[in-house]
Amino acid sequence: MTRADLNPPSLAEAVNAKGYGHAAGFRIVAVEPGRAEVALARRDDLMQFFGHFHGGVITALADHAAGIAVTSGMPKGKIGVTVEIKVNFLSPADGSELIARAKTLKMSGSIGVASVEVFSKNGASETLCAFCTATMRAMDLPAEFK
Amino acid sequence: MTRADLNPPSLAEAVNAKGYGHAAGFRIVAVEPGRAEVALARRDDLMQFFGHFHGGVITALADHAAGIAVTSGMPKGKIGVTVEIKVNFLSPADGSELIARAKTLKMSGSIGVASVEVFSKNGASETLCAFCTATMRAMDLPAEFK
Amino acid sequence: MTRADLNPPSLAEAVNAKGYGHAAGFRIVAVEPGRAEVALARRDDLMQFFGHFHGGVITALADHAAGIAVTSGMPKGKIGVTVEIKVNFLSPADGSELIARAKTLKMSGSIGVASVEVFSKNGASETLCAFCTATMRAMDLPAEFK
Amino acid sequence: MTRADLNPPSLAEAVNAKGYGHAAGFRIVAVEPGRAEVALARRDDLMQFFGHFHGGVITALADHAAGIAVTSGMPKGKIGVTVEIKVNFLSPADGSELIARAKTLKMSGSIGVASVEVFSKNGASETLCAFCTATMRAMDLPAEFK
Repeated sequence: MTRADLNPPSLAEAVNAKGYGHAAGFRIVAVEPGRAEVALARRDDLMQFFGHFHGGVITALADHAAGIAVTSGMPKGKIGVTVEIKVNFLSPADGSELIARAKTLKMSGSIGVASVEVFSKNGASETLCAFCTATMRAMDLPAEFK
Repeated sequence: MTRADLNPPSLAEAVNAKGYGHAAGFRIVAVEPGRAEVALARRDDLMQFFGHFHGGVITALADHAAGIAVTSGMPKGKIGVTVEIKVNFLSPADGSELIARAKTLKMSGSIGVASVEVFSKNGASETLCAFCTATMRAMDLPAEFK
Repeated sequence: MTRADLNPPSLAEAVNAKGYGHAAGFRIVAVEPGRAEVALARRDDLMQFFGHFHGGVITALADHAAGIAVTSGMPKGKIGVTVEIKVNFLSPADGSELIARAKTLKMSGSIGVASVEVFSKNGASETLCAFCTATMRAMDLPAEFK
Repeated sequence: MTRADLNPPSLAEAVNAKGYGHAAGFRIVAVEPGRAEVALARRDDLMQFFGHFHGGVITALADHAAGIAVTSGMPKGKIGVTVEIKVNFLSPADGSELIARAKTLKMSGSIGVASVEVFSKNGASETLCAFCTATMRAMDLPAEFK
């Protein structure tokens, strides 16, 4: 696990330190160029009707991981913002934790595309519960992060 | 504004009364067969890095509206769960409130498809900030809701 | 029906005059700023296993209409190329003709997003058979079209 | 390369023997449970404006491979039909041939989801040019294929 290659090293954590990601409890597990892993522990206010992680929460987590993976491949001073995202929900997200693993499929000019596998974790067992593709475009970071 | 046609009348509110939707503050504005409108007021813990509504929150709200719209067209005792969802983010969601308006495009057997327009509202002005399509399938409701 | 607002007026027809669109028989019905309508008559080599229009053909037609609608809102000398496309197939495309009606949802910098309704037509009756959203980005046109 | 596990063994070829797939020249390269590979050689009437494979053709090929992969995991007498498909176009499809490689992510009841990588091939070199996710549902096969 290394965060040294993040662009800049502390950007992912800065992004994660406030707002929705912070409130929900997103936890950056690993970052390397073109890849990111983000985890989220179960909490009652993140569940839906049937007591599983809410689809919007799963999407937010996948989006977050995709954003970190894609941003890590952008020039310094840029951050990836989401143009569009698509998620297939494959099985009940009923674990004690979610793990989103994103990888960049392509960077092309100012546009990056990532796929994300989201796993529902119960003890040592992981089940693929969602699959996501996201398109990002590069935006200028606010000055304090450049 | 009527909720009389909801299936059953109180289902949308029951779904909304706990978990993520409740914690985030989703507010059902109107339901009629094949249509639903759900609102969400700005709150710091729902924002992303740039201070706009987080994409995952927008997706969750759109998903919620789509689910109510599609469920309203299903037989009694069924609820629509999300198979997949796709969202395009069109402009900054920087208003004081979001409004998601869903309509069912098609019910076919156990599968329903809805599109959702999400507006960012500032005073009387509404701007289309996201566009979503969701595919749902019918599941049996737990006995206490049938 | 007017083509006068196309950008430039003859671009859509030039694009349509060769390759796949021409071979399949795409027919531009109407173009106005931010909107386009393209039709396609039934032909055996455009059908799938069950004798309906093939999903790939429906997607190509929707993509074509989206491209014309979005390009009509771009600066002169630019053409929209598809970043990603999403299609829901809603009912059998078993008519004698398909009609794709695209409208631009948003132009923002070099990126445009359109939604497309595809109808299966039988005599005077039209049935919504597919719903599509496409993201396009502006590219420079080859010199001969500028 | 084996086709023995196809469901039934000759179904994929039967589907491929007529209509659009046949006219375009789709070529089934390999099938195993949950996986399929389908190829398509360059031909002028499959190209778009810039002389690359048309996005609709790429989508059709990906859809075809996804359908074979998902159908191979369905009970005898069933075929997967496409509920929705999403494609990201990652780089110009300017090779002499396209190769679509599909794998099933999940079968759940009557619904299956597959992802597909599409490569543009030039000599021995393959470039990922598109990435696709498709949702399929099981339909009854016509009697002559059961």
